[in-house]
Amino acid sequence: MNNTQASLDPRQFRRALGNFACGVTIVTACDAAGNKAGVTANSFNSVSLDPPLILWSLDKRSSTWDIFQQASHFAVNILASSQIELSNHFARPQEDKFAGIEHHAGLGGAPLLPGCAGNFQCSTFQQIDAGDHWLIIGQVEQFEDFSQPPLVYHQGSYAMVLPHPRGRKPEVTEQNESADLLHTKLGDNLFYLMIQAVSTSHPRFVQQHLKLGMRNSESRLLLVLDSAPNASIGDLQQAAAIPARELNDAMQTLQTKGYLDIKGNQRWVTSAGHAKLEELWNMLHQAQDDIFAELSEGELEVFRRALKLVVSKR
Amino acid sequence: MNNTQASLDPRQFRRALGNFACGVTIVTACDAAGNKAGVTANSFNSVSLDPPLILWSLDKRSSTWDIFQQASHFAVNILASSQIELSNHFARPQEDKFAGIEHHAGLGGAPLLPGCAGNFQCSTFQQIDAGDHWLIIGQVEQFEDFSQPPLVYHQGSYAMVLPHPRGRKPEVTEQNESADLLHTKLGDNLFYLMIQAVSTSHPRFVQQHLKLGMRNSESRLLLVLDSAPNASIGDLQQAAAIPARELNDAMQTLQTKGYLDIKGNQRWVTSAGHAKLEELWNMLHQAQDDIFAELSEGELEVFRRALKLVVSKR
Repeated sequence: MNNTQASLDPRQFRRALGNFACGVTIVTACDAAGNKAGVTANSFNSVSLDPPLILWSLDKRSSTWDIFQQASHFAVNILASSQIELSNHFARPQEDKFAGIEHHAGLGGAPLLPGCAGNFQCSTFQQIDAGDHWLIIGQVEQFEDFSQPPLVYHQGSYAMVLPHPRGRKPEVTEQNESADLLHTKLGDNLFYLMIQAVSTSHPRFVQQHLKLGMRNSESRLLLVLDSAPNASIGDLQQAAAIPARELNDAMQTLQTKGYLDIKGNQRWVTSAGHAKLEELWNMLHQAQDDIFAELSEGELEVFRRALKLVVSKR
Repeated sequence: MNNTQASLDPRQFRRALGNFACGVTIVTACDAAGNKAGVTANSFNSVSLDPPLILWSLDKRSSTWDIFQQASHFAVNILASSQIELSNHFARPQEDKFAGIEHHAGLGGAPLLPGCAGNFQCSTFQQIDAGDHWLIIGQVEQFEDFSQPPLVYHQGSYAMVLPHPRGRKPEVTEQNESADLLHTKLGDNLFYLMIQAVSTSHPRFVQQHLKLGMRNSESRLLLVLDSAPNASIGDLQQAAAIPARELNDAMQTLQTKGYLDIKGNQRWVTSAGHAKLEELWNMLHQAQDDIFAELSEGELEVFRRALKLVVSKR
């Protein structure tokens, strides 16, 4: 899909930006009068080591701009993979976002949230006018590193990270033998094997979805919509792990493709949508049959049971 | 770990920044004389939708700054999970980075790389002095969206993303029954179960590593170093899936902890390092025993074989 400026569609642009996976943060501040602000943002990034600078950007329409503009400090809380609820909470506009939310005051009163992967406490360094957003650069004065598994945002859905199954060379020669060291040494460990199995099968899985014209998150949402035609937005959001602001976009995409009818708060999967789901199920079954042809029914049952056992130990 | 400005250690700061997972890009440009530049960067992010602006930052010491400063355009290539080699290649300084690398010229001659998750072709909009980096803002004029699984960078290692196993509520009531829809409908699909199993076990795995004072990537590196004391930096980099510029940091961290001795190009795991590896192995075995106690030896063998089968189909 090629998009030129003349026809640059904001929704397609946002969608393309979603190819860049990134973490999720909640940026907070407190003004002199004690008004607290907190917004979910994935525009965070590092800028400089000396001096230590980081940046993020804030929509100019945000009602919290006054607080961020006046505050001497702000704090970036990097969310852990377990903090989807917190991410959704701070993405919703509401009276007092901090009511009932555990936090304590950092530098300049900027709220710090417990359970995060880390945080950066910054003095405001520079605020730059950048299109429809303010670019906010902060100088890091303190930070905490909790090394928790991070919450990630990719293609409009929440995601999590897995260690990369570093490239195994097609032919093992004396020179590159070490490339297979981890495989050899960890080869029989079930956790390691599970990660390898998923990281092997998942990219192909994504490819097969794309062949059917669907992103993984879209088929997931279609499936949820089919099973729960009357679910609330909040329920859909949770069941599909799609942030609120992306859910409408995703539903519109399904509608544009003709898989979903939307009238007011009513949503139903069309016959074209059901046909697409059928294709997806067939694809899934076919992929399963292809890979596991060598296993007997009984062995597949053991495999399934072992996996469910792991899931049950959460 | 709390770090104040007075004692802000650049390595610890970089390490803490690594808690924010993000994609990997190669940013390219071409000046009027036809000189091409290409650098691996993970500082990319979106800024504004209207006008469509994105940004990234470049180390002021980079020899490519002249080209980026003069070029009318630049291109951001978002790497796919299969492109670790390309990421490493463009992170290394060398005479002609594009020799032998497939590419074609985009707007303003900026090289576009095939096989990426997407790209953004931009006209240079603004260049901002920001500490030891230049902040470069571009206006997006064209983009392509290939929706490939992305290459991700987290805690100094390469990683990949997995769909998030959205929060299963502890008690299923009539109101939140839909939260379990995907589980019900996809519950017997082996691919889905594998993802659920990994996303359930992996965070606990990370926790257990942290309890032993190690990040997952550090124990992985220690294991590789132990098995291949004479491996080249390139081999280590590949075997541990750690980018070159992080490998030295990671080895220094292991050295600081007393697990590694480094003299010139010689590296060997100390007795404290071997004791730590022993602890890690014990932890892995214990975790395995705890979870799979209900399965017989024969069933575990079937499970292991099924996982290896998936891995072999890569």
